[in-house]
Amino acid sequence: MNNVSNMKIYKPAHEVFEAIVDPGQIGNFWFSSSSARWEQGKTVILKYDEYGAEGDIRIIEMVEDRKIVFEWDYGQDAHVVTITLNESNDGSTVIEVNEDGFNETDEQWIELLIGNKEGWVYMLTCLKAYLEFGVTTLRAALVKE
Amino acid sequence: MNNVSNMKIYKPAHEVFEAIVDPGQIGNFWFSSSSARWEQGKTVILKYDEYGAEGDIRIIEMVEDRKIVFEWDYGQDAHVVTITLNESNDGSTVIEVNEDGFNETDEQWIELLIGNKEGWVYMLTCLKAYLEFGVTTLRAALVKE
Repeated sequence: MNNVSNMKIYKPAHEVFEAIVDPGQIGNFWFSSSSARWEQGKTVILKYDEYGAEGDIRIIEMVEDRKIVFEWDYGQDAHVVTITLNESNDGSTVIEVNEDGFNETDEQWIELLIGNKEGWVYMLTCLKAYLEFGVTTLRAALVKE
Repeated sequence: MNNVSNMKIYKPAHEVFEAIVDPGQIGNFWFSSSSARWEQGKTVILKYDEYGAEGDIRIIEMVEDRKIVFEWDYGQDAHVVTITLNESNDGSTVIEVNEDGFNETDEQWIELLIGNKEGWVYMLTCLKAYLEFGVTTLRAALVKE
């Protein structure tokens, strides 16, 4: 099973792409840090200091300003995340995040799916606020039980 | 099964409460309109013009600046939503939304649960951006497939 989220951002695809791949920007809306600029074939370490979390992503495919595909570990499984950017004629961009690899035989799979949806919708809304309004401090405010 | 989301907002509980119950504010972060000020015992019509959606909520219980409990129809079932505000000594507030009533025998229940999580996390992030930064136009940008 996969998990798909789509958000419209009133900025060109290039700005959305750069916000994600540039380690100088990621801390404004998502992880606290990214160890390197994202590039195809690279492994990048992402840290989320506020939640004491760290993990790596393996970047499988990248098409500048259009697509990023990476693999990361989620629960017991490796998942593949595909981020697709579709810019419209009016200069806005729909960003789609598709995370695939949920294992329905895992007892925790629904909790993992729900937590995953929570994380992506939060990231996408923080990304929109950052790019459209320069708001950089919405992140790290989800309270986990 | 229920669906719980928690967000920390750096504003007093009174401001968070008012943003939700005051029909003059709701269009800044959630529905496009609310037919009346929310009060215990009232039925209020909520409209989401951008998605062509309309529904009513029945307000079961309300404790000023602390708690709102309402019932609404979600999928085939009536769900109970409990919004709880916990203000800290530093003047920030954790808002918890607990939606109860998901029917696991419904074929669509996982899709309903995921869509529900998406909606609440989006609303909470938009609410935070509105109250902390005065950003009023993050809403209505989730693209449905």
